[in-house]
Amino acid sequence: MIKAVKDYIRTIKDFPHEGVLFRDVTTLFADPRGFRMAVDQLLSPYAGLDIDKVAGLEARGFILGGAVAHQLSTGFVPVRKKGKLPGRTISQAYTLEYAEAEIEVHDDAFHPGEKVLLVDDLLATGGTAEAGIKLIERLGAQVVGCAFVVDLPDLGGRAKLEAMGMQVHALCAFEGL
Amino acid sequence: MIKAVKDYIRTIKDFPHEGVLFRDVTTLFADPRGFRMAVDQLLSPYAGLDIDKVAGLEARGFILGGAVAHQLSTGFVPVRKKGKLPGRTISQAYTLEYAEAEIEVHDDAFHPGEKVLLVDDLLATGGTAEAGIKLIERLGAQVVGCAFVVDLPDLGGRAKLEAMGMQVHALCAFEGL
Repeated sequence: MIKAVKDYIRTIKDFPHEGVLFRDVTTLFADPRGFRMAVDQLLSPYAGLDIDKVAGLEARGFILGGAVAHQLSTGFVPVRKKGKLPGRTISQAYTLEYAEAEIEVHDDAFHPGEKVLLVDDLLATGGTAEAGIKLIERLGAQVVGCAFVVDLPDLGGRAKLEAMGMQVHALCAFEGL
Repeated sequence: MIKAVKDYIRTIKDFPHEGVLFRDVTTLFADPRGFRMAVDQLLSPYAGLDIDKVAGLEARGFILGGAVAHQLSTGFVPVRKKGKLPGRTISQAYTLEYAEAEIEVHDDAFHPGEKVLLVDDLLATGGTAEAGIKLIERLGAQVVGCAFVVDLPDLGGRAKLEAMGMQVHALCAFEGL
C-alpha cells in the first residue's frame, strides 16, 4: 500500500491534557518521502501564483514554512509568540482555550502589495491563523492562501477563515475533537 | 556590490537585555536570495555525504532545518524545549546564563547508524547544541556535522563542540559579545 500524508501522522492520546487526541506531524516530517509529499501537496493549489513570501506560525509552522519557502524560492517570515522578535513589532491578540495570547511580526516583515502564503501544521479553532492574517494585512500585504497539513473541521477553524474571505487548503482532516 | 550572507543579518542593540548585540537572522530568511544562499552555503561542506536526517534546534533552527532537509530530500526532526513533544521522549539538561533548562527529542526520532546533520541559526556558548548532540547520540545515531549561519566565537561554542569531536561549519562570524 502506498502511504498518503495522513498515514504518516501519529495520534497520541491525552496530550497536552486528558481527553485530547493529539495529531502528531513529527512522524510525517521525519520521513523523507512524507515530508516531501507534504510540501508538494501543500503547494499544489498555488501553481502559477506569484507568491512573494511564506509566513509560518510558531513553532511547527516554521519547519513546514522553511521547506515551502525553499521550494518556492521565496523568503520566509516567522509569526512569533510575544517577546521573541528582537526588532520593532506589531502584535495581535487572540483567544486560547482559557486565556488571551499575542503573536507578533516585525513591522518591516511585509510590504504593501506583497502576496503571502500562510502555513501551519494544523488548523484547529483558527485563532492563531486569524491573528496572523490580521498582522500581514495590517502591513498592507495580501494573504493569497492559508495552507495546513491537518484540518480538525469540528473545531471550526476552516469556517472562521473562510468567513474572512480566505482560501483554505488542508491535506487531510480528522473528525472529532 | 553583491551582498553576502552576513550583509543580510541585522544587528539589534539591547535585546533580549541591555548590553547585548542581537544578531537577527529574520532579515536574512525574509529575503529570497539570502535564504537560498544560506541553505546552499550551509550544505556546501556535506556534498556527497549520505545524510539521513536533519535535526533543528527550537525555534529558529526549525526554519533553516526545514529548508535544509527539503534541499537534501531527508526527513526533519525537531529538538524541542521540555514539554512540547507529545510522544515518549528522552531529555537532556543544559546550562543557560543563570539557570538550567532541558531539551527533548522523541525516543524514536533517530535510529542506530543514522547520519544526522544538526542545524541552528546561531552558535553562542554551544550549550543547546551540545545537549542536542548528546540526545542524537544516545539514540545511536551519528552527528556528521553541526552547521550554523552565525558563529559568535568569543562565546566559546565552536571550541566546545570541536572538543566533542564535532565538525563545525558556520557561514559568518561576529566578534565581541
